[in-house]
Amino acid sequence: MEPSPHAERFAEMIGAANVLTTADDQAPFLTEWRDLYKGVTPMVLRPGSTDEVSAVMRYAYENDLKVVPQGGNTGLVGGQIPQESGEEIVLSLTRMNKVRAVDPDGFTLTVESGVILETVQNEAEKVDRLFPLSLGAQGSCQIGGNISTNAGGTAVLAYGNTRDLVLGLEVVLPTGEIWNGLRTLRKDNTGYDLKQLFIGGEGTLGIITAASLKLFPKPKKLEASFIGLANPHAALKVFSMAKAQAGPLLTGFEIMPRVGVQFCLDHLDGARDPLEGEHAWYVLMELSSGSEVFPVRDLMEGILGEAFEAELVEDAAFAQNLSQVQDFWHIRHGMSEVQKAEGGSIKHDVSVPVASIPAFLDEAIAAVEAFVPGCRPVPFGHLGDGNIHFNVSQPVGADKEAYLAKWDEMNAIVHGIVADFSGSISAEHGIGRLKKDLLRDVKSEIELDLMRRIKSAFDPKNLMNPGRIL
Amino acid sequence: MEPSPHAERFAEMIGAANVLTTADDQAPFLTEWRDLYKGVTPMVLRPGSTDEVSAVMRYAYENDLKVVPQGGNTGLVGGQIPQESGEEIVLSLTRMNKVRAVDPDGFTLTVESGVILETVQNEAEKVDRLFPLSLGAQGSCQIGGNISTNAGGTAVLAYGNTRDLVLGLEVVLPTGEIWNGLRTLRKDNTGYDLKQLFIGGEGTLGIITAASLKLFPKPKKLEASFIGLANPHAALKVFSMAKAQAGPLLTGFEIMPRVGVQFCLDHLDGARDPLEGEHAWYVLMELSSGSEVFPVRDLMEGILGEAFEAELVEDAAFAQNLSQVQDFWHIRHGMSEVQKAEGGSIKHDVSVPVASIPAFLDEAIAAVEAFVPGCRPVPFGHLGDGNIHFNVSQPVGADKEAYLAKWDEMNAIVHGIVADFSGSISAEHGIGRLKKDLLRDVKSEIELDLMRRIKSAFDPKNLMNPGRIL
Repeated sequence: MEPSPHAERFAEMIGAANVLTTADDQAPFLTEWRDLYKGVTPMVLRPGSTDEVSAVMRYAYENDLKVVPQGGNTGLVGGQIPQESGEEIVLSLTRMNKVRAVDPDGFTLTVESGVILETVQNEAEKVDRLFPLSLGAQGSCQIGGNISTNAGGTAVLAYGNTRDLVLGLEVVLPTGEIWNGLRTLRKDNTGYDLKQLFIGGEGTLGIITAASLKLFPKPKKLEASFIGLANPHAALKVFSMAKAQAGPLLTGFEIMPRVGVQFCLDHLDGARDPLEGEHAWYVLMELSSGSEVFPVRDLMEGILGEAFEAELVEDAAFAQNLSQVQDFWHIRHGMSEVQKAEGGSIKHDVSVPVASIPAFLDEAIAAVEAFVPGCRPVPFGHLGDGNIHFNVSQPVGADKEAYLAKWDEMNAIVHGIVADFSGSISAEHGIGRLKKDLLRDVKSEIELDLMRRIKSAFDPKNLMNPGRIL
Repeated sequence: MEPSPHAERFAEMIGAANVLTTADDQAPFLTEWRDLYKGVTPMVLRPGSTDEVSAVMRYAYENDLKVVPQGGNTGLVGGQIPQESGEEIVLSLTRMNKVRAVDPDGFTLTVESGVILETVQNEAEKVDRLFPLSLGAQGSCQIGGNISTNAGGTAVLAYGNTRDLVLGLEVVLPTGEIWNGLRTLRKDNTGYDLKQLFIGGEGTLGIITAASLKLFPKPKKLEASFIGLANPHAALKVFSMAKAQAGPLLTGFEIMPRVGVQFCLDHLDGARDPLEGEHAWYVLMELSSGSEVFPVRDLMEGILGEAFEAELVEDAAFAQNLSQVQDFWHIRHGMSEVQKAEGGSIKHDVSVPVASIPAFLDEAIAAVEAFVPGCRPVPFGHLGDGNIHFNVSQPVGADKEAYLAKWDEMNAIVHGIVADFSGSISAEHGIGRLKKDLLRDVKSEIELDLMRRIKSAFDPKNLMNPGRIL
């Protein structure tokens, strides 16, 4: 690709080393791990400060240049990959990686948006606090991307979505102007809560450059159990018992089918089956407490005792130490990755009201098995949040390409059932490019119109991550 | 006032009995309890369904009629009172009072916006659940107003602001169109989270007609203590101890000065001093648990034991039963009302980072005492949220009008100190008309401009609650 005539100007703003124009330098920014998208860009820019982001955006606005912000490039809907047209500049936040302030007494942390999620977690831990956001990609995803996509993960049950963890934001607007909304207040009712639009806005309204985040007491006691049971109906009942007894101390409740656990045993380094026999379904239940005084082990035993008595549980293993807790989570966190080894996988990230999860799974599993006989549904995820990653692996020995060609048709079947349960077709991954067309089917014209009005109020030239969401 | 030429048309839409045009009928809608605002309106409309609200709004939009939505008329910043110009129609949501759905298993409740907060609480209690929003006006305020102002109250510490309790909204837009965003999902990342703009939007972007709300396990164990201590510095340290030990079970931590408690003893029916001696400051601490198994009483004793040992606490009373818990809260909830009996009171609803509360109080108390010698600061409220109602009663025997004439000057002094601590000039009451001019001092031009763009995207004719916030 020819170097852009604008590259020299950008080099003056942020240094030539941070304007990437060769194919080799750009490569890591142009593909993503599912291989669904491959992008083309005139250049990748890596500004190192809010002022540099502002200068870049101001110039881009004046010159009608389209910009795609990119964090750790772990997004699952193509939002962060430039379009094939080759017009969109990639703005990587990787160098915006400073921790700006740590306030353990006020339970807040202020970081730049390029800080990797695991680093945010570690910074909190250093001061005996917890930043609860936790997900499979935490070693490489960046907090700015987490916020822009309102990431979910495994701690939503007790701590909420990323939206619930953000106190304030600093954002560079499409015009290059800087909005300083970096507040650490727990209560502030002074006009429209602007940060809510950038959270989950998928980079279409501005570029998040820094965030003030909520911290929590670090769990001092942690218990986990790996539970074998017959079906999701039993799992929901165990969830209700656990929620009633443990309340806010119930910090994880993840459901997995046998086939998913088997994939992990077959393909995931270090995975071991926590239970001796095989069970059709599994639940990973975690309880934790920031205080030493709660009898968390007793609580876990009480919940499981009640569940055994009600004949809801077939078998259960208790983690005897932190290493075993990690072993349990290793299986859960590996569940997405291992599906690659089993050929093509058609994916859905859906949510329904919590109480509807078993009925939804019954219907959706039957429907996809009727659509592709021999396919292997691997629905897993956050039962307590009503959020299931309804992934369906190809039949053993089937042709991968031919199977993946059924993606849209299978999506339509599953999303139709989701709609019957008043659910969401994107519970935590966002819309990006992958689900943009689907959005028109599930949203009212009024809702889409309101979104368009917001987009055009913030980005009248439609230069910020164009073609995502809307 | 002459009947409006439009009254007849509205009568066709919602029934003549629901178009109030006489002074007597209108009176309750035109004043509020602080007597800061007295409004004039051509008519008060009381639609009884979403379709009726939609019809009213469509007609108003087509005919360029300004509309002020009103819930329980307990707002504290004049947002719900029509302006003196007499142009604004009052749209009362009082008849929108149906409970639409109760789902105890899914921990959700869907109600129309005119349902009184206490009714919402009671509906939750009927199915053994808790709707945690709790504030002094709960017997008359309506949930739609709570949502439109993102109400705070005494349960924010454990359960968040009203914003955190809303899963979905139904809204009639300024054009009369109905946006059905009534979802009960815990996770949904399908585009901009539109409901966030109406929450805390103070009725300037549309009229909330129904809401889906989060429910929680009903506390089975509840403990409260009334603590006497020397100063807010000690109170903050006790708060840190309590938060570390009790975590999410710490459901209340309210601070009050002696003068406020004394006002209650003097003027509030049924108020009794929980402690024998007098103390400069008091804290009401509450712990609660949805489970029977937590040793909540032990926890309370543990926290207070540690605080006594550290010499932070002078005396403390434990509630021995639910009636005593209510006695403690009776004092706290009465604290605002009793100030009326002591003459003029200049009020501030401010927040600062939690750890800055003691330093803020030291500075602000000294500053107002220097400004009006003999004045009686009664700062009280939600220490754990960093939110203080910094109310200042007039000197004994002073002239009320002359004292209240210093309102703006005292505001400027206190808000200046708030700004030094990066705080908020409206932590939970909103902006309305009272603080509209102040907003320009504390917000950047960029932030105000973004708000104006949103307002104009949603309400291009500026007919919805005009002159509030912006």
